[in-house]
Amino acid sequence: MTISPSPDTYLPMSGRAHPDVNPVTDGGDLPIKSSPHRHKVGVPPKQNMFHDFMYTFKETFFHDDPLRHFKDQPKSKKFMLGLQSVFPVFDWGRNYNLKKFRGDLIAGLTIASLCIPQDIGYAKLANLDPKYDSSFVPPLVYACMGSSRDIAIGPVAVVSLLLGTLLRAEVDPNTNPDEYLRLAFTATFFAGVTEAALGFFRLGFLIDFLSHAAVVGFMGGAAITIALQQLKGFLGIKKFTKKTDIIAVLDSVFSAAHHGWNWQTILIGASFLTFLLTSKFIGKKSKKLFWIPAIAPLISVIISTFFVYITRADKQGVQIVKHLDKGINPSSFHQIYFSGHYLAKGIRIGVVAGMVALTEAVAIGRTFAAMKDYQIDGNKEMVALGVMNVVGSMSSCYVATGSFSRSAVNFMAGCQTAVSNIIMSIVVLLTLLFLTPLFKYTPNAILAAIIINAVIPLIDIQAAILIFKVDKLDFVACMGAFFGVIFASVEIGLLIAVSISFAKILLQVTRPRTAVLGNIPRTSVYRNIQQYPEATMVPGVLTIRVDSAIYFSNSNYVRERIQRWLLEQEEKVKAASLPRIQFLIIEMSPVTDIDTSGIHALEDLYKSLQKRDIQLILANPGPLVIGKLHLSHFADMLGYDHIFLTVADAVEACVAGTTRDVVEANVTLRGVPVTLLDIAGIRETSDTDDSEEVILHFCKVFIGK
Amino acid sequence: MTISPSPDTYLPMSGRAHPDVNPVTDGGDLPIKSSPHRHKVGVPPKQNMFHDFMYTFKETFFHDDPLRHFKDQPKSKKFMLGLQSVFPVFDWGRNYNLKKFRGDLIAGLTIASLCIPQDIGYAKLANLDPKYDSSFVPPLVYACMGSSRDIAIGPVAVVSLLLGTLLRAEVDPNTNPDEYLRLAFTATFFAGVTEAALGFFRLGFLIDFLSHAAVVGFMGGAAITIALQQLKGFLGIKKFTKKTDIIAVLDSVFSAAHHGWNWQTILIGASFLTFLLTSKFIGKKSKKLFWIPAIAPLISVIISTFFVYITRADKQGVQIVKHLDKGINPSSFHQIYFSGHYLAKGIRIGVVAGMVALTEAVAIGRTFAAMKDYQIDGNKEMVALGVMNVVGSMSSCYVATGSFSRSAVNFMAGCQTAVSNIIMSIVVLLTLLFLTPLFKYTPNAILAAIIINAVIPLIDIQAAILIFKVDKLDFVACMGAFFGVIFASVEIGLLIAVSISFAKILLQVTRPRTAVLGNIPRTSVYRNIQQYPEATMVPGVLTIRVDSAIYFSNSNYVRERIQRWLLEQEEKVKAASLPRIQFLIIEMSPVTDIDTSGIHALEDLYKSLQKRDIQLILANPGPLVIGKLHLSHFADMLGYDHIFLTVADAVEACVAGTTRDVVEANVTLRGVPVTLLDIAGIRETSDTDDSEEVILHFCKVFIGK
Repeated sequence: MTISPSPDTYLPMSGRAHPDVNPVTDGGDLPIKSSPHRHKVGVPPKQNMFHDFMYTFKETFFHDDPLRHFKDQPKSKKFMLGLQSVFPVFDWGRNYNLKKFRGDLIAGLTIASLCIPQDIGYAKLANLDPKYDSSFVPPLVYACMGSSRDIAIGPVAVVSLLLGTLLRAEVDPNTNPDEYLRLAFTATFFAGVTEAALGFFRLGFLIDFLSHAAVVGFMGGAAITIALQQLKGFLGIKKFTKKTDIIAVLDSVFSAAHHGWNWQTILIGASFLTFLLTSKFIGKKSKKLFWIPAIAPLISVIISTFFVYITRADKQGVQIVKHLDKGINPSSFHQIYFSGHYLAKGIRIGVVAGMVALTEAVAIGRTFAAMKDYQIDGNKEMVALGVMNVVGSMSSCYVATGSFSRSAVNFMAGCQTAVSNIIMSIVVLLTLLFLTPLFKYTPNAILAAIIINAVIPLIDIQAAILIFKVDKLDFVACMGAFFGVIFASVEIGLLIAVSISFAKILLQVTRPRTAVLGNIPRTSVYRNIQQYPEATMVPGVLTIRVDSAIYFSNSNYVRERIQRWLLEQEEKVKAASLPRIQFLIIEMSPVTDIDTSGIHALEDLYKSLQKRDIQLILANPGPLVIGKLHLSHFADMLGYDHIFLTVADAVEACVAGTTRDVVEANVTLRGVPVTLLDIAGIRETSDTDDSEEVILHFCKVFIGK
Repeated sequence: MTISPSPDTYLPMSGRAHPDVNPVTDGGDLPIKSSPHRHKVGVPPKQNMFHDFMYTFKETFFHDDPLRHFKDQPKSKKFMLGLQSVFPVFDWGRNYNLKKFRGDLIAGLTIASLCIPQDIGYAKLANLDPKYDSSFVPPLVYACMGSSRDIAIGPVAVVSLLLGTLLRAEVDPNTNPDEYLRLAFTATFFAGVTEAALGFFRLGFLIDFLSHAAVVGFMGGAAITIALQQLKGFLGIKKFTKKTDIIAVLDSVFSAAHHGWNWQTILIGASFLTFLLTSKFIGKKSKKLFWIPAIAPLISVIISTFFVYITRADKQGVQIVKHLDKGINPSSFHQIYFSGHYLAKGIRIGVVAGMVALTEAVAIGRTFAAMKDYQIDGNKEMVALGVMNVVGSMSSCYVATGSFSRSAVNFMAGCQTAVSNIIMSIVVLLTLLFLTPLFKYTPNAILAAIIINAVIPLIDIQAAILIFKVDKLDFVACMGAFFGVIFASVEIGLLIAVSISFAKILLQVTRPRTAVLGNIPRTSVYRNIQQYPEATMVPGVLTIRVDSAIYFSNSNYVRERIQRWLLEQEEKVKAASLPRIQFLIIEMSPVTDIDTSGIHALEDLYKSLQKRDIQLILANPGPLVIGKLHLSHFADMLGYDHIFLTVADAVEACVAGTTRDVVEANVTLRGVPVTLLDIAGIRETSDTDDSEEVILHFCKVFIGK
């Protein structure tokens, strides 16, 4: 009488009986027969509304429990902690030592050498004079307030470009540079305010709405756009389009081809670009040589400048930086627009630039924090970045943020704390004070080459491929952002990225997944039959798992989908002439919450099932759900004996109700189900026919002798 | 050596060992020791992208599988089915019989008697002449195309009011009535187009974004606003505010108090309102007498009209309907604006009115479908409603939809099919043709009373209370909509309702729930320890369940929340001087999907855990998730031996890895775990100390002798 699992999805009922059912009480008259020892589903104690509300509020805005450390501390300590949490420098500053300083010094010098030439180029992207260098003031501010140890602060290509395009759309930098400059500072100011506000009001999660995929696409597109912009300097073209889309740019490149290109420029640019790429390649090959790509830009600047100086190649039409004024950033507070029609524009641009800058900085912060395993408080970080930009906007800096390339170098150069940023800004200060004149003969081609070299890593093809493999819809978002940037403009690309991301969220909320569950042979586990083909279904019982909270946005879909599953199964059952479906079990484990619409959907389902004499059964509703079902009296309507702790319990009860004969023989040992089938199994393993023997053999197996 | 569950959440490990672990192979050297017979987590076969995409597409737009019936049918049948699906009348028409007709006739006459007086009042709400009656053409169209059997079509209070307010904001109905009328038809036309388009493009789910709570609040507010509007007719005030907000209305009511009120009007109105309310009360008391409230309005109209006619109360300043032109609705196609600056306005108003009308109609359709258990295809329904309004707009009707009060009467009067709508529209037709003059002396007070009586049920206090009990945030949405309507305006209320609903969705997506799981004694089930206080945790192991798909919108929160759980537990553990946490098990059952951001979050978590020498373990990842973890090579990084089918398996493996001694004695019988503790348990139950005895006793228990 051994029963082995049959090939089709159905197994004789005996195979499925998971009793806990005690033979005596098993009448089998009631359709549902739940065992006396079955574990009841816990209805959590009614929580008072205020507590309930506070919990949600806390999880939404203070999920990281920022005030944890402040609990039961003396006043003085509290003050100190408060100071430290606003200025982490007081925290790590105390146990700062020479060893750490060595690391920071090296790292600082390395990133300084990397940033100086980059900054000149990035300033050009923002149509600003290189003297408005954001690598001096902002890093100092961040060093005091920031909680990340590895992030390197400064202007970044993408934000510079974004700012440049947005600003130029309002004011022409060539015709009236003053207004342009003032608007730039205004935008920077409000970018800072936006960042700080998001952090202060704990709205950090808003930037999470920009999906990774969208960011990858956006960055890639921006990188290509930036690289294309560099063709001007790289090919030594004089008249170049103001647009940023690929068509306009290539058009003006090729229209300039027959007369506008300057071979000396190209020669210099090309050769140094090759040098930079090779050094980058070497750096990749061995981590120890990370410093080669790091200082390569500075070296090429020095060499090329010297070369141009002696050959006077600028006479051959090689464009050079020419004049750079000395001196540190003057105060620019009075230049910020706090009124007039430029205010609104400044705010708009600032908000966009601020969000993008934030996205990049926070991503960097998280990455390195995960590498070295320390926590950074996203919201606190935003406040730091915000204050940094506000101060920056008052000291003639434009939007600065965490730069990925520099942070990586900083990390590899063995930085220990934010001191490396201080070192960098000091070096930058000295450069601004004394060395700027030396850059006079630096050919623009070099800067172009440096920027092209800097933005190449932003084109993350690997990530794109992974996204394509993992999630098609993500890939659409990625490509949308990418093509949006290169064919339209940076802000269009950004818009596409955000809207696709949102569409995805809405889709996710309206169309939760559902799955038909089957029992995995010889266990009491029920799993998706699509994932586990060996999982078998119980005749007369249909088990469906709903994979999301049931809210107004999906309640109707869920109801209709369940009814469709039922319909499909009933057809199959009819085809296979198996017993009709009498029980519909809904596995509620993933249903973490339900609202009134959801409850109504369940009620409708219950009613329509009743009409067809099918019993609705719920398995493992969570605390919130059972609480609400209880409050709304749906649980009463359904009957608490139709709500089970596990699917196994529910199935067992259904089967118990329907097939007396099989269950009779089932017994249970402290919740461990053992059916006739099991003994038959032993019989298989043992090679005897006598039931006494079987039991003995079993005992042997049991105590492992 | 009996171990009973200790009061605190922790239980000695032996208690938690769920072996499948075979004593021989149990080396206990590796930290993770998964049993050879453990059931592997199924990695679903790689699906080709197209199929994958088509599935999502289908679930999003064709989840109800509308073409199911068309599968493998001959051409002719297909055509017939197509015809039937567009015009269900061909479906139910064939087996229509006299018995059904009787039901429909009675129902039709009843709703007709109800609708005639209502329509005159509703037309006033929309600032339209009562002759533009939407209860003639639309019901006929719907009867042919609609799939609901119980819905009764006609103008409804809320939509009429909404239309009235929106239209008046554009054109003044008194100064230039013609433009107003044309705009009304234009709006109706585009309302129909909107509805049909939503249905045709399978975008029906969009109306699900208006949550039940929001609708309750909105309807309640609208009902009060409408009732307040009726005070004009009810108190016989001549000059009345054009605004709809409660303050303006009450102001103009009381400012009119000392001279404007007309006691005769009030007397008539009040007495008949009492009559209507009493009849409603009677109807509620016994379902059999449903027809009393149904015909009460018509009766009161007849009586009051007759009364006014003989007493000529209109001479005493009792306002009467006066002139009503005879005749059926003329064609109005030429009056619709298809160009000019009114087009845009017409579209805007149409879209809003159409959506609201749709929400009401679909809600009604679903309710009654659930009661009688037949399926209605939401999208098909929308097409029917849309076409109905488009046709209506061309035959001088304004927006019509399913009316709840009438549908209820229709249902109770025993309607069988949409024929009851046809009966109603015929009666309305006859009335329009011959009886309209009789309404000349009907006092406006009666119409006011009828409308007040009709809208009272829309104020669903029970529902509001339930919402308050079930979900506080829902209640906020409900109240927001409610107060928005009564203090600002209908469209403001609508706006508030929609935006709060959306905010709720975003909140739900950004802040999924997480829970710490414990083992429920004597089972292999792991549940939320907050819901099941008796659930016990395994020392050295922390099990966390993430209750949502992990997407970019919540990945960081999930990561941080898990780390916080870990932190909190570690503190507790330290306090209780228990073994440090070595294993972090994430129960992935509810995690139905994951995107690249989610995978990155897991990677970050994995890295930071590694730093702290804590093992990350996943339990029961779903098909999509495991597939993506596989593709992204995170599964390899983690190691497949760290991914388990159930939490029990995972815990067992952890425990097996750490505590050899206890597990030694554990044996397994075809997946049935039995540990030393179990024997100890038996020992408890039995009253003997000899292990032989124990085993014998156990065997007895086992075979149930």
